[in-house]
Amino acid sequence: MKSMSGGEKSVVCVGKVLIGGDNPLAIIAGPCAVEGEQMLRDTVRPVIQSGAHMIRGGAFKPRTSPYSFQGLGVKGLKILNRIGREMGVPVVTEVMDSGDVELVAEYADVLQVGARNMQNFSLLKRLGRINKPIILKRGMAATIEEWLMAAEHIMVGGNEQVILCERGIRTHEQWTRNTLDLSAVAVVKNVSSLPVIVDPSHATGHTHLVAPMAKAAVAAGADGLMIEVHLCPEKAVSDGQQSLTPRQFSSMIAEISRVAAAVGRCCQ
Amino acid sequence: MKSMSGGEKSVVCVGKVLIGGDNPLAIIAGPCAVEGEQMLRDTVRPVIQSGAHMIRGGAFKPRTSPYSFQGLGVKGLKILNRIGREMGVPVVTEVMDSGDVELVAEYADVLQVGARNMQNFSLLKRLGRINKPIILKRGMAATIEEWLMAAEHIMVGGNEQVILCERGIRTHEQWTRNTLDLSAVAVVKNVSSLPVIVDPSHATGHTHLVAPMAKAAVAAGADGLMIEVHLCPEKAVSDGQQSLTPRQFSSMIAEISRVAAAVGRCCQ
Amino acid sequence: MKSMSGGEKSVVCVGKVLIGGDNPLAIIAGPCAVEGEQMLRDTVRPVIQSGAHMIRGGAFKPRTSPYSFQGLGVKGLKILNRIGREMGVPVVTEVMDSGDVELVAEYADVLQVGARNMQNFSLLKRLGRINKPIILKRGMAATIEEWLMAAEHIMVGGNEQVILCERGIRTHEQWTRNTLDLSAVAVVKNVSSLPVIVDPSHATGHTHLVAPMAKAAVAAGADGLMIEVHLCPEKAVSDGQQSLTPRQFSSMIAEISRVAAAVGRCCQ
Amino acid sequence: MKSMSGGEKSVVCVGKVLIGGDNPLAIIAGPCAVEGEQMLRDTVRPVIQSGAHMIRGGAFKPRTSPYSFQGLGVKGLKILNRIGREMGVPVVTEVMDSGDVELVAEYADVLQVGARNMQNFSLLKRLGRINKPIILKRGMAATIEEWLMAAEHIMVGGNEQVILCERGIRTHEQWTRNTLDLSAVAVVKNVSSLPVIVDPSHATGHTHLVAPMAKAAVAAGADGLMIEVHLCPEKAVSDGQQSLTPRQFSSMIAEISRVAAAVGRCCQ
Repeated sequence: MKSMSGGEKSVVCVGKVLIGGDNPLAIIAGPCAVEGEQMLRDTVRPVIQSGAHMIRGGAFKPRTSPYSFQGLGVKGLKILNRIGREMGVPVVTEVMDSGDVELVAEYADVLQVGARNMQNFSLLKRLGRINKPIILKRGMAATIEEWLMAAEHIMVGGNEQVILCERGIRTHEQWTRNTLDLSAVAVVKNVSSLPVIVDPSHATGHTHLVAPMAKAAVAAGADGLMIEVHLCPEKAVSDGQQSLTPRQFSSMIAEISRVAAAVGRCCQ
Repeated sequence: MKSMSGGEKSVVCVGKVLIGGDNPLAIIAGPCAVEGEQMLRDTVRPVIQSGAHMIRGGAFKPRTSPYSFQGLGVKGLKILNRIGREMGVPVVTEVMDSGDVELVAEYADVLQVGARNMQNFSLLKRLGRINKPIILKRGMAATIEEWLMAAEHIMVGGNEQVILCERGIRTHEQWTRNTLDLSAVAVVKNVSSLPVIVDPSHATGHTHLVAPMAKAAVAAGADGLMIEVHLCPEKAVSDGQQSLTPRQFSSMIAEISRVAAAVGRCCQ
Repeated sequence: MKSMSGGEKSVVCVGKVLIGGDNPLAIIAGPCAVEGEQMLRDTVRPVIQSGAHMIRGGAFKPRTSPYSFQGLGVKGLKILNRIGREMGVPVVTEVMDSGDVELVAEYADVLQVGARNMQNFSLLKRLGRINKPIILKRGMAATIEEWLMAAEHIMVGGNEQVILCERGIRTHEQWTRNTLDLSAVAVVKNVSSLPVIVDPSHATGHTHLVAPMAKAAVAAGADGLMIEVHLCPEKAVSDGQQSLTPRQFSSMIAEISRVAAAVGRCCQ
Repeated sequence: MKSMSGGEKSVVCVGKVLIGGDNPLAIIAGPCAVEGEQMLRDTVRPVIQSGAHMIRGGAFKPRTSPYSFQGLGVKGLKILNRIGREMGVPVVTEVMDSGDVELVAEYADVLQVGARNMQNFSLLKRLGRINKPIILKRGMAATIEEWLMAAEHIMVGGNEQVILCERGIRTHEQWTRNTLDLSAVAVVKNVSSLPVIVDPSHATGHTHLVAPMAKAAVAAGADGLMIEVHLCPEKAVSDGQQSLTPRQFSSMIAEISRVAAAVGRCCQ
């Protein structure tokens, strides 16, 4: 079982960014969805200056309702790719369908599998045959074992560059969007060699909970963080209530650096 | 919102079988996976004689581990199709990937979306463009609202032949595989015009719980049932512990008929 | 383990009412809280005429907020007792504290342990030393095993007159108050000799879901039902939105009788 | 609503130990159950030297099965009290019944309400009338709102010395005993003035997960920690698999101090 071998920790390389093992905390930040080129540029420029190593932005958006904004599609991929090159940082985006893997892989440096697709086995198998890192989000009701098994579906095809991402599970609690399960980070660190990052934005659903949960994630041993940032959260087409402004992001990074240092992990 | 319009109940036609509205209870039965032609024939012949209106059998199997049996694929589809014609009944099978929709639609009369794919929006959208009935299973942690929204993703494309299928949600309970949520049936009956059926086999995970839950489902107002039957459950490649033998199926149908009659629904 | 012995089914006697085994379905009905004597009389008279065998009504109410109505206390117990004698039927009410057991036992024929107190072990132990039947509601997040173990805490003290009551567990679903777990009824029937009844009112939280779930409970094998009825639900001090009017109760009983007959259980 | 007033943070005083506000992290440690005097002395001596400010130990144990060890009762209270005086530190123990409040308050400096009793309203009300600090554990399926409401049940009686304790909620995850909900800590910090501490031992159920979750709790803003320590975990009468040895506790404290400093909280 590749996903559950202990021993030496896997390190996933995304350009110059190394994730996992003893490497510094990896910070991925950006808006929930790519809404436009200038918006994306203005959002991520300060974010990269504050310390983000990679940019995220959705082009294909999984939305509960078919009447909600579904993303800019290929146009969004192109914008994301262009801004990534311009800024010199790798870009991450979600792929929702096995038929889109090739297309998305053309524009993105890391392909993300969303929580709703964690057991979309056709998609996982297809991702096992490409040579790009994959961020695999935990399903909303997935056990840790099923999550590792989903990683196995990718790895068995030959692509072992899998980064796990805890993003909260669904519980009865109503004051947070999901319940961030940080013990899953500690469990993964114990049973698997794969790197694991945390998305406190989707997990909590509220701006004011992002920084405390980001710090907690780092203290629990996370290898990285994925943070939603929007230039103007109240105007975001999706997930504005959980997005930080670039300024909030910057001050959060300062706080996180101190926690990272306290647990023996540097934060470049 | 097509999935939540009240008013007249939708009736989905599968050959001569009508599901929903005031139509008789529809019974779908068969093995978890198509394991071979003779096995399938020997299983479903007595099952149809006992009153099943449609045959089910998986050709593409979603499995937690990549090392488990993944189904016979196209060979399985062909066997299922052949047996269906031979017996003169429609066949139901799962489609896991938007890229397989056309292929599966060639062999199956009804395409099933599994719980793990309930929010595989690419798949749902693709199914919205075909002209075959769809059975949409509820996701393991999906709310009723999200389930109806998933139906909407299909219906918005033009295909309104959607049958909802409650198959249990994931809770803390460990003595059943999932927790069958029969109140979801009553809620759906109240807010939606779509037919809703129940799968007590996957929901409970134990043979001895299938009949009581099937009866309860009918009493709660379900339009149909999907039941796992295997000639020899202890030799099944998957889900044997929840499969009925044809003989158990037959006696369950007799019990169900009485409950159906008691709630004013006939059971042909 | 007394609560998990298979074999002969236990029958609990409450005056002339026998619950469990092959006895007819036992129907317990009444308002959530005793609000006043005339109100209770006017509510339960038609309810008993429609077929209820016992009256329920809370005198000590467990309320999430300390500022909500907490029940009439001893005054409520006396009213309930008086109406029970007047109508010639046993009465059921909740006891919340080990210190109140003697008091409540003076006025009630059956003492009920609420979901929130299922693991109030001091209370359970105290109830094990009295000679009155106990209705033990399942905790909101209790496993079936823990529920049976809670019964064991009572039975080990010598009082084996325990009736289990499924009333829904807490899940992520928001369109129902709780998720009624009818498979728990079938499981209990299989592993325990104790009678098990169902409370579809608290489980669903909505009037229109009570009748379908009551029928489903009977089909699943429940030995009885506990139903909230209020003369004027919109004026109830608590739980009005889930209470039936006496007229709705009456027509539900007619429907239930047919389902009970269909599963071989008579409904006096 | 006392439990939800924002504004100035409450500080609860337990002897010389101050909990909440800007006070240093409070560390409560000790065995799950008081098993004997010498054992307790030998366990807590090194633990206090390593930095624990209070001792915990159960005398009345809430146990799922009535056949498990139920605690030493009054004898346990006396031992705990004696060791506390001897070492000069306050002691914490659980009270399970409103009838025992006076007795437990005689021997303990802080009374703890366990998760199973979070909505034992009789107990809460009784605790509202004493003048000792209360640690209120969150129920296994309680929402944050219900937890604060439970605190309100105590506070409304006049006792405002309430310390909340997050100890994990029940989810579908099987690799941890419960799911520690650290976002609850951040939420409480935002909406309530009450101090909140975290019990990573009961939450995770595994020794190797205690230190990472303790660090995460501190990073999330917890005002204190409650940690199970046993001289010889493999011989503990209960919860051995989640207990640290005094040596493990000591090295965890060193790690925690660094995280506490990183989030601006000192750790004496």
